[in-house]
Amino acid sequence: MASRNPRVTVLGGGSWGTTIGSLAARNTETVLWARNEETVTDINERSRNSRYLQDIPVTKTLRATTDLEEAVAEADVLVLGVPSQHSRGVLEQVTKHVRPWVPVVSLVKGLEQGSSKRMTAIVEEVMPGHPAGVLAGPNIAREVLQGYAAAATIAMPEHRQAEMLQELFRTNLFRVYTTTDVTGVEYAGSLKNVYAIAVGVGDGLEAGDNTRAMVITRALREMTRLGVSLGGDAMTFNGLAGMGDLIATCTSPFSRNRTVGVGLAQGKSLDQIAAEMNQVAEGVKTVATVMKLAAEQGIDLPIAREMDAVLNHGQPVKETYRGLLRQAPGHEVHGDEW
Amino acid sequence: MASRNPRVTVLGGGSWGTTIGSLAARNTETVLWARNEETVTDINERSRNSRYLQDIPVTKTLRATTDLEEAVAEADVLVLGVPSQHSRGVLEQVTKHVRPWVPVVSLVKGLEQGSSKRMTAIVEEVMPGHPAGVLAGPNIAREVLQGYAAAATIAMPEHRQAEMLQELFRTNLFRVYTTTDVTGVEYAGSLKNVYAIAVGVGDGLEAGDNTRAMVITRALREMTRLGVSLGGDAMTFNGLAGMGDLIATCTSPFSRNRTVGVGLAQGKSLDQIAAEMNQVAEGVKTVATVMKLAAEQGIDLPIAREMDAVLNHGQPVKETYRGLLRQAPGHEVHGDEW
Repeated sequence: MASRNPRVTVLGGGSWGTTIGSLAARNTETVLWARNEETVTDINERSRNSRYLQDIPVTKTLRATTDLEEAVAEADVLVLGVPSQHSRGVLEQVTKHVRPWVPVVSLVKGLEQGSSKRMTAIVEEVMPGHPAGVLAGPNIAREVLQGYAAAATIAMPEHRQAEMLQELFRTNLFRVYTTTDVTGVEYAGSLKNVYAIAVGVGDGLEAGDNTRAMVITRALREMTRLGVSLGGDAMTFNGLAGMGDLIATCTSPFSRNRTVGVGLAQGKSLDQIAAEMNQVAEGVKTVATVMKLAAEQGIDLPIAREMDAVLNHGQPVKETYRGLLRQAPGHEVHGDEW
Repeated sequence: MASRNPRVTVLGGGSWGTTIGSLAARNTETVLWARNEETVTDINERSRNSRYLQDIPVTKTLRATTDLEEAVAEADVLVLGVPSQHSRGVLEQVTKHVRPWVPVVSLVKGLEQGSSKRMTAIVEEVMPGHPAGVLAGPNIAREVLQGYAAAATIAMPEHRQAEMLQELFRTNLFRVYTTTDVTGVEYAGSLKNVYAIAVGVGDGLEAGDNTRAMVITRALREMTRLGVSLGGDAMTFNGLAGMGDLIATCTSPFSRNRTVGVGLAQGKSLDQIAAEMNQVAEGVKTVATVMKLAAEQGIDLPIAREMDAVLNHGQPVKETYRGLLRQAPGHEVHGDEW
């Protein structure tokens, strides 16, 4: 970059915020803000986030703090990594301390409940003048942190800015591609969680590899239909943030949303599943939001509808798969069926 | 259908030919032609194809024969299920015995060596006047035969004919969608085998779930680029025959092409791997053909090129992944990089 090295501030001490902070700290000065004091101490004194990432080391130069004002005052780039339901609140606290023009890169894969808004739309509302974008892809945090090869795409309204931010996050083993389709990347990342639950249900019912591939493929078509009607680019859904993330989420044993589906298929209640995981599965709350968006757009989403029936209306899980299979298939591209 | 129930003849007694024969036999009179006498006896006397499908039962009404003339003389629909290198020879024998207008549905996922031709192009050459199409999707044979839910797409030049044939192959648990993009479905099915080897290499090197999702996603983009330049529809590559089959092939432990990649990564030779499997992995031979097609179209296919280097030019497998990772990523949709 032409100017001095930018300082990055990551908001949120979850597994993915920590991982992105760890990557950025290899390229530039990076601070992580977390609410939890133990997490902050753990990162500062042991270069670990044991709560979410067990004993995997994070970059030694990553510094953490519980002081939000201190964390953002000197930031040249903000990374938003808090759960979707806390995003607006955190941004409202941040906005009065941050310098103008500082871009905000969201890592959040969820939509605001009630408003159904994407995180970048909330940034634009709460922090006018700050370019808002998103980083997403097939990124199970622990694997990225452990140094397995992975890729993501960064979307910013201006392509040049995406290219500059790309350099802050990429490493030899973490490939960051660029795009300007912020809307598409954001919907892709959010919608995919709903479908990961559906695939988890299939896996929990011990359906096979074909079934999983079928559900993933038809799910992507469904996601794309909604995402494009909401202003996203179809190509984005075929990329890392859509298809890529969907595949990783649907095949990794570490995926939270998939785990919810597996648990449901095994007859567990949502409360029971939530108690067994100590992290949020965004998909559970996204389902109702997705149904609302689909209704507004006049689009039928058979797979999401079945997940909504299971999660929000008490439909037995086994009925769900049988119900879907009863629908006759039509034209693969032009048909309305799932 | 308006006319009497069509008779289906499946050419080829491999795992997928037998499975499709078994499905069709539930809907209509179906005959399977196989070269191997033991397979024929096994199907006729025990309703099994133990050679390829162990002890999984096939539909009891499926009849088998080694007599090609008998098998095709009364056929109203031909299903081509022999390995790609035998397809032309079998079709040349078939053509003089079959009635006019009988449609030919290819199950073959490979291109003719030397000519680089798709199977339906060979049908059109050898059997002019017979509509030629293809059935493809995420279909690990043993799972379909065992009754796990799965889906495929049938492509015929005329959509009405695709809809009529759809009824012959679909069951409650095998969803058959329709399309008219024969070219796209055929290239998707063939190209994906090359990329399944690449994913197998990654798995053999013990890369993670993110890496697999990344390679699958970028592989699909690469396949689509070549397939569209050869006349296929991009949407087909995002469908069951492209993405769907790629995911199933890349995640199932039963996939032959993936197994080749895993073996290569473990330092085995191609001969050794071939000796351990008793079936053909089409992808190994497809790689050189794909490189030829890409050169003719002036398209660079970085992943396929690395597989070609490994399979045909003795490049060590570990170099391959490292080489790919050294390339900097660019724009996700418009970039030329992998």
